[in-house]
Amino acid sequence: MSSQSNTAPAPVILTGDRPTGPLHLGHFVGSLRNRVVYQDSYRQFVMLADAQALTDNMEDIGKVHRNVVEVALDYLAVGIDPARTTILIQSQIPELAELTFYYLNLVTVARLERNPTVKEEIRHRGFERDIPAGFLTYPASQAADITAFKATLVPVGEDQIPMIEQTNEIVRRFNRVAQRDILVEAKALVPEVGRLPGIDGKAKMSKSLGNTINLGASAAEISAAVKQVYTDPLHLRVSDPGHLEGNVAFLYLDAFDPDKEGLQALKDHYVRGGLGDSVVKKRLEGILQDLLGPIRARREEFAKDKGQVMQILKEGTAKAREVAAQTTDEVRKALGLSYF
Amino acid sequence: MSSQSNTAPAPVILTGDRPTGPLHLGHFVGSLRNRVVYQDSYRQFVMLADAQALTDNMEDIGKVHRNVVEVALDYLAVGIDPARTTILIQSQIPELAELTFYYLNLVTVARLERNPTVKEEIRHRGFERDIPAGFLTYPASQAADITAFKATLVPVGEDQIPMIEQTNEIVRRFNRVAQRDILVEAKALVPEVGRLPGIDGKAKMSKSLGNTINLGASAAEISAAVKQVYTDPLHLRVSDPGHLEGNVAFLYLDAFDPDKEGLQALKDHYVRGGLGDSVVKKRLEGILQDLLGPIRARREEFAKDKGQVMQILKEGTAKAREVAAQTTDEVRKALGLSYF
Repeated sequence: MSSQSNTAPAPVILTGDRPTGPLHLGHFVGSLRNRVVYQDSYRQFVMLADAQALTDNMEDIGKVHRNVVEVALDYLAVGIDPARTTILIQSQIPELAELTFYYLNLVTVARLERNPTVKEEIRHRGFERDIPAGFLTYPASQAADITAFKATLVPVGEDQIPMIEQTNEIVRRFNRVAQRDILVEAKALVPEVGRLPGIDGKAKMSKSLGNTINLGASAAEISAAVKQVYTDPLHLRVSDPGHLEGNVAFLYLDAFDPDKEGLQALKDHYVRGGLGDSVVKKRLEGILQDLLGPIRARREEFAKDKGQVMQILKEGTAKAREVAAQTTDEVRKALGLSYF
Repeated sequence: MSSQSNTAPAPVILTGDRPTGPLHLGHFVGSLRNRVVYQDSYRQFVMLADAQALTDNMEDIGKVHRNVVEVALDYLAVGIDPARTTILIQSQIPELAELTFYYLNLVTVARLERNPTVKEEIRHRGFERDIPAGFLTYPASQAADITAFKATLVPVGEDQIPMIEQTNEIVRRFNRVAQRDILVEAKALVPEVGRLPGIDGKAKMSKSLGNTINLGASAAEISAAVKQVYTDPLHLRVSDPGHLEGNVAFLYLDAFDPDKEGLQALKDHYVRGGLGDSVVKKRLEGILQDLLGPIRARREEFAKDKGQVMQILKEGTAKAREVAAQTTDEVRKALGLSYF
């Protein structure tokens, strides 16, 4: 990153979530806990991508609306601080749609179809050719979100890197058309810890697979989930040697156990044989209860006054909109779409 | 039209032009003179589609900006009256981009690719697969323009009827999602007089073909253009029988000559033989000078105070924006995108 140099703009992060359900441990590991760190060093915008979420939720529009406040509660509960992070609701900043509209002229259909992330998502959702147009064009929308805030860093998984490249292509094409550098290129910020598997051992933790532990889970729900955690199917008796590969209990301990030495000793014992799953799970449960207990408590506290949460979103959105409106104004002027 | 019934909404017309060059006789016959009539009976919105025009003018953005005022001058010159017609600039109503964004979720890529108008335009422009995404998705943008003003009538040529059908599909899908009739279906209003050929006899009168007579043409330019008008290549001597088919001089007379009887006599004489092209062209020139003289004079008058023209556009746009904002608000609420 050249962000430390004198000439580079101050680093700005854009990140966010599609509010389609409660956030879970996977979000915590993959993004939320990083945001809590980032807000100390960077200007950070966290976007509730409700308009984007509609792309494949047109048949259940209430779901997106309901989850905006739920996801905001998750944000506040994990320690995203509205004083240091600007939390915004995408749909309430129409400039993002306006920029999308312009950027659609800067990318070809063929290029969108080649986008590996779009390809994979189309496959994953089983859309084939009957994809909503908004789905094919969502890289332009994402480019609008990133560039509106002149974000220089976008935290994404490895699989999302092509989306950032796509954004930067649009940035370069726009700046060429504008004949000056109005938009800013962004860099992917890929977190060190990758994706957390579901409690069933499936690669992706996902609400639709029912293999999540939500951030707002009760103590009893955490307890029940840990009991279901996939371990080693060959580890039938306590005396059997256990395997660590694909063992979700240990993968979760890797992600959350602060006592790395103690964890290593536990692993050695497990592999040697003579250590029951119940001991491992007990340790995991303790750690998860310790992690999620305070989060749940803060979440419940914030949830008592949803009016206050909406006020936080309103203020964050207004602040973010000022930035987006400024960028959009520059874009409009550069395109000659300014008259009065 | 059921617009006369008690329950149907009052008829609203949306029409407009892409401001990429001065308007010409083809526009006059195909649309402008109808608008002057429509404004007596309908609520009429005339849109300068500058944002839409960018789709294939990203490499020459100044052109669109420059032509907004030129086309507005053409409107005022032909008698479109800002007191009875709301003239608006598309890009200054960001709600149109916002609606486009939502509508992209209501139409599939496959459906857009099947749109005959889009197909034909893609072929015409030689885009192939390298079309800008904004070009493929422009039916969603057009649906936004039409529905934002709850237009019930859209004057279009035969070839544009599929675009109206596409809009109505989006309207029906949206209303189903919203579970109430928020958007209004539109009807194509196909004018009786079809397309005027170019002076060279080519089917389309078009700036890029250089076969137009502009509305602001000087007397000398009109005279020179009429001299070039394509007639009957077999009509070599005055005494030869002449042909009317494809004879642009007569096609123009059909469109503009108010003396239908005199015109019929002229045609008979021409077909019989013994009537020179020069006589026909003299008649045509007289009629065009009579038609365009006052238009040119009004155009020059308005052009003296472009500030006033911009004021007209500003007021029309503000008025139109109120309507579009109202519709967009209803759309946003129906999609659950309303929070504060």
